[in-house]
Amino acid sequence: MKIKVGVVGGTGYTGVELLRLLAMHENVEVVAVTSRGESGNLVSSLFPSLRGFLDIAFCDPESVDLSICDVVFYATPNGIAMQQVPELLAKGVRVIDLAADFRIKDIPTWEKWYGMTHACPDAVAKAVYGLCEINRDEIKDAQLIANPGCYPTSVQLPLIPLLEKGLVSKDNIIADCKSGVSGAGRGAAVSSLMSEVNESFKAYGVSGHRHLPEIEQGLSFAAKQEVQMTFTPHLVPMNRGILSTIYVDLIDTDVNAVQAYLEEFYKDDAFVDVLPIGSLPETRSVKGANICRFSLHQPQGRNKLVIVSVIDNLVKGAAGQAVQNMNIMFGFKETAYINFVPLLP
Amino acid sequence: MKIKVGVVGGTGYTGVELLRLLAMHENVEVVAVTSRGESGNLVSSLFPSLRGFLDIAFCDPESVDLSICDVVFYATPNGIAMQQVPELLAKGVRVIDLAADFRIKDIPTWEKWYGMTHACPDAVAKAVYGLCEINRDEIKDAQLIANPGCYPTSVQLPLIPLLEKGLVSKDNIIADCKSGVSGAGRGAAVSSLMSEVNESFKAYGVSGHRHLPEIEQGLSFAAKQEVQMTFTPHLVPMNRGILSTIYVDLIDTDVNAVQAYLEEFYKDDAFVDVLPIGSLPETRSVKGANICRFSLHQPQGRNKLVIVSVIDNLVKGAAGQAVQNMNIMFGFKETAYINFVPLLP
Amino acid sequence: MKIKVGVVGGTGYTGVELLRLLAMHENVEVVAVTSRGESGNLVSSLFPSLRGFLDIAFCDPESVDLSICDVVFYATPNGIAMQQVPELLAKGVRVIDLAADFRIKDIPTWEKWYGMTHACPDAVAKAVYGLCEINRDEIKDAQLIANPGCYPTSVQLPLIPLLEKGLVSKDNIIADCKSGVSGAGRGAAVSSLMSEVNESFKAYGVSGHRHLPEIEQGLSFAAKQEVQMTFTPHLVPMNRGILSTIYVDLIDTDVNAVQAYLEEFYKDDAFVDVLPIGSLPETRSVKGANICRFSLHQPQGRNKLVIVSVIDNLVKGAAGQAVQNMNIMFGFKETAYINFVPLLP
Amino acid sequence: MKIKVGVVGGTGYTGVELLRLLAMHENVEVVAVTSRGESGNLVSSLFPSLRGFLDIAFCDPESVDLSICDVVFYATPNGIAMQQVPELLAKGVRVIDLAADFRIKDIPTWEKWYGMTHACPDAVAKAVYGLCEINRDEIKDAQLIANPGCYPTSVQLPLIPLLEKGLVSKDNIIADCKSGVSGAGRGAAVSSLMSEVNESFKAYGVSGHRHLPEIEQGLSFAAKQEVQMTFTPHLVPMNRGILSTIYVDLIDTDVNAVQAYLEEFYKDDAFVDVLPIGSLPETRSVKGANICRFSLHQPQGRNKLVIVSVIDNLVKGAAGQAVQNMNIMFGFKETAYINFVPLLP
Repeated sequence: MKIKVGVVGGTGYTGVELLRLLAMHENVEVVAVTSRGESGNLVSSLFPSLRGFLDIAFCDPESVDLSICDVVFYATPNGIAMQQVPELLAKGVRVIDLAADFRIKDIPTWEKWYGMTHACPDAVAKAVYGLCEINRDEIKDAQLIANPGCYPTSVQLPLIPLLEKGLVSKDNIIADCKSGVSGAGRGAAVSSLMSEVNESFKAYGVSGHRHLPEIEQGLSFAAKQEVQMTFTPHLVPMNRGILSTIYVDLIDTDVNAVQAYLEEFYKDDAFVDVLPIGSLPETRSVKGANICRFSLHQPQGRNKLVIVSVIDNLVKGAAGQAVQNMNIMFGFKETAYINFVPLLP
Repeated sequence: MKIKVGVVGGTGYTGVELLRLLAMHENVEVVAVTSRGESGNLVSSLFPSLRGFLDIAFCDPESVDLSICDVVFYATPNGIAMQQVPELLAKGVRVIDLAADFRIKDIPTWEKWYGMTHACPDAVAKAVYGLCEINRDEIKDAQLIANPGCYPTSVQLPLIPLLEKGLVSKDNIIADCKSGVSGAGRGAAVSSLMSEVNESFKAYGVSGHRHLPEIEQGLSFAAKQEVQMTFTPHLVPMNRGILSTIYVDLIDTDVNAVQAYLEEFYKDDAFVDVLPIGSLPETRSVKGANICRFSLHQPQGRNKLVIVSVIDNLVKGAAGQAVQNMNIMFGFKETAYINFVPLLP
Repeated sequence: MKIKVGVVGGTGYTGVELLRLLAMHENVEVVAVTSRGESGNLVSSLFPSLRGFLDIAFCDPESVDLSICDVVFYATPNGIAMQQVPELLAKGVRVIDLAADFRIKDIPTWEKWYGMTHACPDAVAKAVYGLCEINRDEIKDAQLIANPGCYPTSVQLPLIPLLEKGLVSKDNIIADCKSGVSGAGRGAAVSSLMSEVNESFKAYGVSGHRHLPEIEQGLSFAAKQEVQMTFTPHLVPMNRGILSTIYVDLIDTDVNAVQAYLEEFYKDDAFVDVLPIGSLPETRSVKGANICRFSLHQPQGRNKLVIVSVIDNLVKGAAGQAVQNMNIMFGFKETAYINFVPLLP
Repeated sequence: MKIKVGVVGGTGYTGVELLRLLAMHENVEVVAVTSRGESGNLVSSLFPSLRGFLDIAFCDPESVDLSICDVVFYATPNGIAMQQVPELLAKGVRVIDLAADFRIKDIPTWEKWYGMTHACPDAVAKAVYGLCEINRDEIKDAQLIANPGCYPTSVQLPLIPLLEKGLVSKDNIIADCKSGVSGAGRGAAVSSLMSEVNESFKAYGVSGHRHLPEIEQGLSFAAKQEVQMTFTPHLVPMNRGILSTIYVDLIDTDVNAVQAYLEEFYKDDAFVDVLPIGSLPETRSVKGANICRFSLHQPQGRNKLVIVSVIDNLVKGAAGQAVQNMNIMFGFKETAYINFVPLLP
């Protein structure tokens, strides 16, 4: 069985990663990849890695009829999907948005952080937050998926179970996160130039990054009370990968008990790997793969729990999780055609 | 159908890449991975990328019986396979050597360049040079494959047809080749340290590199006369990838005719991609994939043909081509489980 | 005026950086660079960057008489200087140790973290901790300088004044630190190979790193009470640079007051740059230079102060601060011959 | 003595490198740095590396009077200097152009390769090509310097003496050149993004690069007959550095005689380092320094001479050579304030 798939906005890094995965997915036929600027050009002329695997041309977003698709992925900048999705939903098409348009339930919060008026608050209400391991049941029947942000995926997967269970404090949570530069997108910006980024390391968005309210929403839902945390993203001179170092206060427990709880919680999840206590995960251990690996530490036996969590920002942090959502939605095996061994080195 | 596969020497980069591919190959059961130093340890504790995909331990090379295997890969340093292979061959096991022990037919030449006495010249005589697209027919029935070197693969695939056909001169051939550092192996050497290699570029082996006689052998065979060439390898501050810039003199022809000939020559080969004239291949267009892409140029319309050829040194230049050889030997589809889309970025 | 300088252990990255600075220092004559392994070889044959600038050979540590030196730098592994320094001190030679032998005043603590019995506790008692901007007056007359560690320099420069003044809490201090790989040294270790480190990011020493007690000692001294903190070092795929992200709780104050205090505190220090509030320092802004730049942030106006601090680990974090100590000790201008503009890009 | 210096176009990598060197030059007062886009902003707000070293603002090119300068550097895109320089020359100001406007003596050739009509052919006729070691005498009294291109510097320094002397053939010359990405400039182009360039290697401009006619002009002048060569530039995933691998045919001589000749030729030049035969220069051996190092090889004793030549593209290939030209023009010591030890690692 093959479903018909459309991709809106296929010229960025999330887009090309999505196309890589879809091109290898035997239950998928990619029927349209849209791009205003590249319309008519072969997708593989922009991304030579796809030559021989996806030999179709970009089509014009104005003239293509996406309602023939079973599912449409939006790999567009924030604010695009919300303009177009209601019409697709009305026609019965299912949608997975890799941008942020449907991630934040509280519309004023979304509007404040994204600096736009939301075009379809109703759709937000119906959207399911596509953190697969947490919301699997709702995803199955969802028509609209808000695919999680990259940092939020790496931070929420280890923290949500702990806050739900009350093993760690909701106060004093710090997520010190580091991302490769593909997360900054494929736009022509001086700040993303090789000579600007390479052989340097910096923090950014210290005063406030859009993933902060997304993470706080998820953690608050888990803790059943408002959670405020400190989130500092950094830019690593490499292409792919996120490592999040998370600091939380233990509540009447220790690292062994927390470990046991998380191992049990994720024991059936192929894409969440709870490493042995004290392990030191590297981003390369998940490069190109749809896996989140994390480990726990309790330095000096003090009360601070340190969690180190890694994902590939373009896979489990974006395109891979999107395909995982699609697999769940269409009743394919959840791991189908995204269960690749990471590329090392 | 599954064949039983053994891997001797699985602790280097060629080894882990081979294990990555074999772990995803549905016609393969990996029954043994040997390592003297790591015996007893989980393969995935050394290579965390394999966690969840290959959860067996390294076994001791002395105590394992590899004769139960249908095929054994040697991913060992030069000089190891030649000690052990005759015994395996005698027991009917097929062998693919990723090192150089069986690549050079002329034993004195091999002994001069590798600085060792060859242990089994008879096996060399029977070995098939596993450049798949050139020697496919002999590979099918071979018991022993000499898997080609990385540089030689990138240089010979474009040049062999041209020399066979007499389109370019056998004189004045220059191959200026550039490789990522995984080609230097996973040994603990100061010269391979990040701080030594990163943010720098250098030539090495200018006075003579072991791949010179290997390439000259292949080109001489194609040209049916002795070919001498100049070969300069360089080290690129990146993990994976080889780009070879090849300079040859045209003989009474031009770039268009050469292009047409090569397109025809390779029209049925999934893993050789003759790019349009004037294309500029990048190593990332083949990262993680078993593909050689190359393009032709005739700058200023002068008589010098410039060929730019790229492979992933660990895949088409090593482990991928080894599995391609295995597929051919065992009658699997030649592209089976190695036909992955390259990872970009 | 020129002083006679000896360097013990000049084959590592700290050593070559020290030689780079000393070779350009017009008040210095380098009379001896020792190395057991490289004795007799030109320093510039090991480090071609020095060709034409320092054309002397390594000498054997056994046969050289370092007592002719005015000052001797130890750029050796931990545990070497403590064996040799007492004899030099007795002969009136001044010593600057770039390793950790004299950094920790509490000998049992040192012995626990460094896993050795200390050879000369008396010398530790007399040693001055060479954090120049904090201990300048004691450095002037010191005979033995314990040059600070790289992480400790980046963390203590912003924190010490704040703890002294009581502007931030001694509890809940977190230093999430990221270093380039030259900090791991020039030893031939698999874990420092380009292919292991490049295009990956990891934490290390999460359970306990030797710089933890060094930082806690400095902060405790400043706070006049015991300070415990959480310190997590990470490895960045680049050669040089440290960025430390420091999280502290404000005590009845805000970021503006803290900023004013630090600007005043460091107003006469050429090598400490308090950036405007909200600035985002990059490690490349100090590459090759003896400068610590940091900035303050109070995200969302909450009570958590975030400090982002950058140094070049080999300069202000090692060799540069060592020469700065020498300048202070010998009455040269403190900035003499180390006041170079950082190299960007 | 201090001269007044102006810099037109200080926002690119050549510009910031020039400002780094000028800020440390004690015979220089930088009186104006122009930028249309950044006018009014501190230079150090764009380039934080300059904070504390050059604390002036960019000025508007329209309103500044550069005629007060003793010398003006143009670090602008091609085609700007030729519009403005005649007026400055008429006022007696000396000019050093780091772009290509005055490098090619044959105006039709220049116009063909640069795609513009030249605005002041007369100035071209008077301009001196600022390859310091070759044209030192003419540089002294020049009013207008055409600062050489980066690739041409690395190729011409070793080749010019050999062609002048007739030691190598004018036919069959190949320069296979590799550059770090800062050579592509600081413009916001997708092709220069970190995620596009990093972990990849490619050739570019194979069909024809603007430095080809510049090199051919220099070599033809040396050989006293027309020289045609093959020039292939490549992009290396690093910030700085050029390595050129040059292939030439020996004429009745060998590598030893060529070595002796070049050592003698450059024996008084501080910035040209003829390495011992067979050496393997690395770009990091000249990082941040105004040095060209090269070595000679005669592989297998055949008749092909291989020259490997390294420079820092931003220093000896641009800003450093420009300041060297200034030093010569104004009678300063030729090495003054540009004789820094390279930064390694």
